[in-house]
Amino acid sequence: MRTRHIAPQMTAQILPLGQARPQPTLDPMMALVATDLGRVNEVILARMQSEVPLIPELAGHLIAGGGKRMRPMLTLACARLLDYAGERHHKLAAAVEFIHTATLLHDDVVDGSSQRRGRRTANIIWGNPPSVLVGDFLFSRAFELMTEDGSVRVLRILANASAVIAEGEVDQLTAQRRIETSEDRYLHIIGSKTAALFAAACRIAAVVAERSEDVELALDAYGRNLGIAFQLVDDAIDYASDGATMGKDAGDDFRDGKVTLPVILAHARGSDEERRFWRDAIEGRRVSDDDLAHAKQLLERTGALADTLVRARHYAARAIDSLAGIGGAKARAALAEAAEFAVARAY
Amino acid sequence: MRTRHIAPQMTAQILPLGQARPQPTLDPMMALVATDLGRVNEVILARMQSEVPLIPELAGHLIAGGGKRMRPMLTLACARLLDYAGERHHKLAAAVEFIHTATLLHDDVVDGSSQRRGRRTANIIWGNPPSVLVGDFLFSRAFELMTEDGSVRVLRILANASAVIAEGEVDQLTAQRRIETSEDRYLHIIGSKTAALFAAACRIAAVVAERSEDVELALDAYGRNLGIAFQLVDDAIDYASDGATMGKDAGDDFRDGKVTLPVILAHARGSDEERRFWRDAIEGRRVSDDDLAHAKQLLERTGALADTLVRARHYAARAIDSLAGIGGAKARAALAEAAEFAVARAY
Repeated sequence: MRTRHIAPQMTAQILPLGQARPQPTLDPMMALVATDLGRVNEVILARMQSEVPLIPELAGHLIAGGGKRMRPMLTLACARLLDYAGERHHKLAAAVEFIHTATLLHDDVVDGSSQRRGRRTANIIWGNPPSVLVGDFLFSRAFELMTEDGSVRVLRILANASAVIAEGEVDQLTAQRRIETSEDRYLHIIGSKTAALFAAACRIAAVVAERSEDVELALDAYGRNLGIAFQLVDDAIDYASDGATMGKDAGDDFRDGKVTLPVILAHARGSDEERRFWRDAIEGRRVSDDDLAHAKQLLERTGALADTLVRARHYAARAIDSLAGIGGAKARAALAEAAEFAVARAY
Repeated sequence: MRTRHIAPQMTAQILPLGQARPQPTLDPMMALVATDLGRVNEVILARMQSEVPLIPELAGHLIAGGGKRMRPMLTLACARLLDYAGERHHKLAAAVEFIHTATLLHDDVVDGSSQRRGRRTANIIWGNPPSVLVGDFLFSRAFELMTEDGSVRVLRILANASAVIAEGEVDQLTAQRRIETSEDRYLHIIGSKTAALFAAACRIAAVVAERSEDVELALDAYGRNLGIAFQLVDDAIDYASDGATMGKDAGDDFRDGKVTLPVILAHARGSDEERRFWRDAIEGRRVSDDDLAHAKQLLERTGALADTLVRARHYAARAIDSLAGIGGAKARAALAEAAEFAVARAY
């Protein structure tokens, strides 16, 4: 369905990574971790409780709101890849999801978003103050869960990822409404705000399974490249879908003046007049629905959306290659398909 | 100077805790930890840096903005009390200050505050979004510092304190504009939002000094009672001072509809008409300057401010008694005077 949105004329010339599976899904990974994920969900539900009723109410709205549990699934699948037989990763995967949920709550406050995963955001329902504070609670609870596990190495990886995420978010704020933002800077920002947690989620599985630093770094590379692919695709979808298919307000990035790769490419390739349009739009002077429609036309005509997906495909391929020679074939195939899925979401 | 504000007719009958020191200060504690505090400030300055310039700019505004460094000083003074000779507590005291700074940034967003420590707040200068995100950064950086120390016990104490702080803040939000809030609930809220970090800051000194759990609990009790005393006095000062003496907007609690102990006592002791006034004020219908002046009159006439300070004095005394028999006399005297100072600030 989304094929019609994103430069269909370009997609024909891009061969799917997995030719035997033209529609890659998360199903193999979900099947691999189903039992574990049930345990993680139990931890999540138990540990978002509080004697202050508003906390589970607000957190539950987002946590129960149809998220894919992508990041905790990665922890579980990577642990399975390494034949880890224990249970430590359940709490840690829950901690990863809590960190992610905390950043979503704060992001929606920062962006003033009104819709996520097809539902109204917490900041719209309850206001900004509890969204900020419940985010802080989940973040603290994540670290409590990690201290119960007791691995200082895991704590270090996730504390570092959390600091990098916040740096990336602040960096994104300072790049906002600046059409001059380079592709390098954009990649650095999404490497921080998105890929750092994907990388950490995967890496901690190697720590729990007590594998070498080489294995840690390989899983880190898998997660990092997958995270970049994921964000690239999200940034393309923001211009390609409507709210109904995406679960959040399409065109949000455009109206917020966020300089994502599609815009960087279309601006670089545009005529003088088009470059003026992009500057006006990103600086907030042309953000009507008609302007958004015009922006979409430019993105398609310049091939900016399609080439954003080419870039995403590159990172997905790097993610898959990072796993070469590591772990069992079945889990590796599931992780590879998850990387293909990250890109296929756009089609 | 503040004596004139807070029920001067009541203060005469309350004997100072330290009769030989009618004006207790933080000077003995500051002298005790001066060298250590210099090292902590170096860690703070070094570790609030980031490649994203807005982060040190915004964080530095608050961190350099004249805070007393009360919480890190407590860590240092408690370590000195236990004759700890190492340097681990420098990073940990910096982590405590980062957690505190993060909560201040988020509090000011939540309350929409415009002034703190006599300066404009970060949310007024830079807006809410970077205040939220830099708070997240400092919070993450705090946990990074702790992982560098490597004590899971310290991590557990501070992660738990952080979660309890957030719970207290959310609880305070849900109690806001509810005149029915009981003294018990108020004490529970300030025990969470304020005293938990005081307790943790003191307790971790015992962990670093490798002392028994009894000593840990004694320092925890000292910090917890001190923190409650501190908050009680802050809540009294909010009705007793003007912005110039307090460094933040006086009357903020009144206008925000926060039900603090002075209000709880004045409401409980008031006539039917006065109780109607308090309900109207806390529910946001009577918050003019004249209403604030009327509130101050009621607080003085009912003895609510003076009795709030009597309560504070009780907790300060409990803090001091918690230290009985622990550590060296000089440090103990400095910590005792810090508890006296917590109350004396109001006079």
